Amino acid sequence: MVITSKIGIRTKGECDLIDITAQVEREVLDSGINTGTVTLFINGSTAGISTIEYESGLVSDFPDMWDRIVPRNISYQHDLRWGDGNGHSHVRASLLGPSLVVPFTDGILHLGTWQQIIVADFDNRPRAREIVAQIMGE
Amino acid sequence: MVITSKIGIRTKGECDLIDITAQVEREVLDSGINTGTVTLFINGSTAGISTIEYESGLVSDFPDMWDRIVPRNISYQHDLRWGDGNGHSHVRASLLGPSLVVPFTDGILHLGTWQQIIVADFDNRPRAREIVAQIMGE
Amino acid sequence: MVITSKIGIRTKGECDLIDITAQVEREVLDSGINTGTVTLFINGSTAGISTIEYESGLVSDFPDMWDRIVPRNISYQHDLRWGDGNGHSHVRASLLGPSLVVPFTDGILHLGTWQQIIVADFDNRPRAREIVAQIMGE
Repeated sequence: MVITSKIGIRTKGECDLIDITAQVEREVLDSGINTGTVTLFINGSTAGISTIEYESGLVSDFPDMWDRIVPRNISYQHDLRWGDGNGHSHVRASLLGPSLVVPFTDGILHLGTWQQIIVADFDNRPRAREIVAQIMGE
Repeated sequence: MVITSKIGIRTKGECDLIDITAQVEREVLDSGINTGTVTLFINGSTAGISTIEYESGLVSDFPDMWDRIVPRNISYQHDLRWGDGNGHSHVRASLLGPSLVVPFTDGILHLGTWQQIIVADFDNRPRAREIVAQIMGE
Repeated sequence: MVITSKIGIRTKGECDLIDITAQVEREVLDSGINTGTVTLFINGSTAGISTIEYESGLVSDFPDMWDRIVPRNISYQHDLRWGDGNGHSHVRASLLGPSLVVPFTDGILHLGTWQQIIVADFDNRPRAREIVAQIMGE
């Protein structure tokens, strides 16, 4: 059995981290599927999906890491060519990846207690985003 | 229902980025499966899979990032031990990851308009590569 | 058909890399499922999953990369707030990702000859870990 739904969020951009755990849990329960996986996928090339302990310290430390390894203030061919100013956003998104697969049993996701599902929006402006949540199982 | 197929590509190595979106779309349509996921997996430990806006600026910016964070011209134990010269290729591949899962409905992948599926071949020489595309759904 | 099992490991922390390939292969064979995917997921926010050529050179090079791009000896808000001393562990885990999906056919995983499945435990102390291995297919 396969159920496909969408989770809508609004982001501030520049590595805004949005905790979507509650929405994913609700979609899994609403699907009526007992055991299986939920595949999360963000369509767009300037955001990614992962997990984190969602507390204010790490919500600051994770973006700080991106500023170190994929800085904003260096030259990107993407920006020279298109003038978007979001070359760093694209490179960060490709490194993090657009997809996450989380297994569940009895309708409960196998997350740790301090492990939340996040969207990292790397774009250089606020965005409305849609994440596909496809639930497959029995 | 599960259909397993393979996508063959030739790469130049050293972070050559190959857009395999059209081949993945064709495999999904040919499978006859309406709704589900395609799991892409590259067997080999010097390449990875992700998505990117496939335009010449980013096709240059993404490799530039790898040259900064996992440089070629530093010492790797792998190279001292085996003399392959591709220690950086292995480390890059492990960080990016060998797998990507993309959901689809009505035979259409949930990709953004400017979001292509890429293989990043990090090896230090041209390679012939095979990517497994396993399609599961109903 | 969906089978959910767990793989238990003990780690030393600080980017200890554990090769779980043999356990995953056994779970797939024991499931009786012929063709499908195994979704590996580590619950916890200080460890990740990927693949690597598991040989002593790379088992040293991969942690060296983490020490360069997400160093231990810089300031993390997480540590200032909670005193855990593992801010770097969390950031590394979020970047690598907690999940990996590997396709198999005829009970055999589509891994390369020199490609092993690893758990990278980034925490700053030894841990007992459980990895969910959910096998789906027909």
